[in-house]
Amino acid sequence: MAVLRFDPPSSDKKALEDGDAFTPRFDAAGLVTAVVTDAADGKLLMVAHMNAEALALTLETGVAHYWSRSRKALWKKGETSGNLQRVVEMLTDCDQDAVWLRVNVLGHDATCHTGRRSCFYRTVGISDGKATLGLDGSEPLFDTDETYRKHS
Amino acid sequence: MAVLRFDPPSSDKKALEDGDAFTPRFDAAGLVTAVVTDAADGKLLMVAHMNAEALALTLETGVAHYWSRSRKALWKKGETSGNLQRVVEMLTDCDQDAVWLRVNVLGHDATCHTGRRSCFYRTVGISDGKATLGLDGSEPLFDTDETYRKHS
Repeated sequence: MAVLRFDPPSSDKKALEDGDAFTPRFDAAGLVTAVVTDAADGKLLMVAHMNAEALALTLETGVAHYWSRSRKALWKKGETSGNLQRVVEMLTDCDQDAVWLRVNVLGHDATCHTGRRSCFYRTVGISDGKATLGLDGSEPLFDTDETYRKHS
Repeated sequence: MAVLRFDPPSSDKKALEDGDAFTPRFDAAGLVTAVVTDAADGKLLMVAHMNAEALALTLETGVAHYWSRSRKALWKKGETSGNLQRVVEMLTDCDQDAVWLRVNVLGHDATCHTGRRSCFYRTVGISDGKATLGLDGSEPLFDTDETYRKHS
């Protein structure tokens, strides 16, 4: 259980943009967006969400925690697969409704539940008037069937 | 007005993750999350949202369009400041509820409305039991007062 509490955001735009207090602007569901990149080469790994508890635990422990919207539960990323994320740096944006985590990924250096390094493994294009996807060629870095079966 | 329409997402997880159709999973507000990085050096520039029209216009024109949640309007990024974003590549993630735009920024090479290159100009930390912010040293690249006054 996290100890850190966040003050409510200022209604003054200037305080939000220029102040030195981190007062995250949680949405109606109590979440901020989290963008996660690899601290070593800047590769975009995933986009997830954090509630106040996940955000506080991440700051306190240095290990990334999220809120799983599908499971409606706190989610210590990599707890099952071993692919934990050590946070090198956290930043926030001008209006404080998103955070950017620069991380080192442990375990298999894989972030996606499909086993790939990044969740963003498909490019979007238009073909014959339809929106289509193409694979970027990245391959799974671990046996997801084996890893997740053990823990299900 | 965009021509491109998106098919509804499959309820089959495998089709979403492995299929070759881009069927974005818009949230209850009709939006997907868009993460924007510089195509040249990978720097995270901003996080925004797109509805179906913004997504289709972006794919059709190659220039980034978003949905402004504060203004409740379609938003051609950079229309006022000249800092348009040319899309080099668009990717989507495993469950197709987020897109990643790799862009070249025109104009002043500034993405944030504060004039800075990136909206993420502050690091988050803990000091005396409080969540605090520190500036990363980035400076405005254009005169925002001048630019936005002209157009308000």
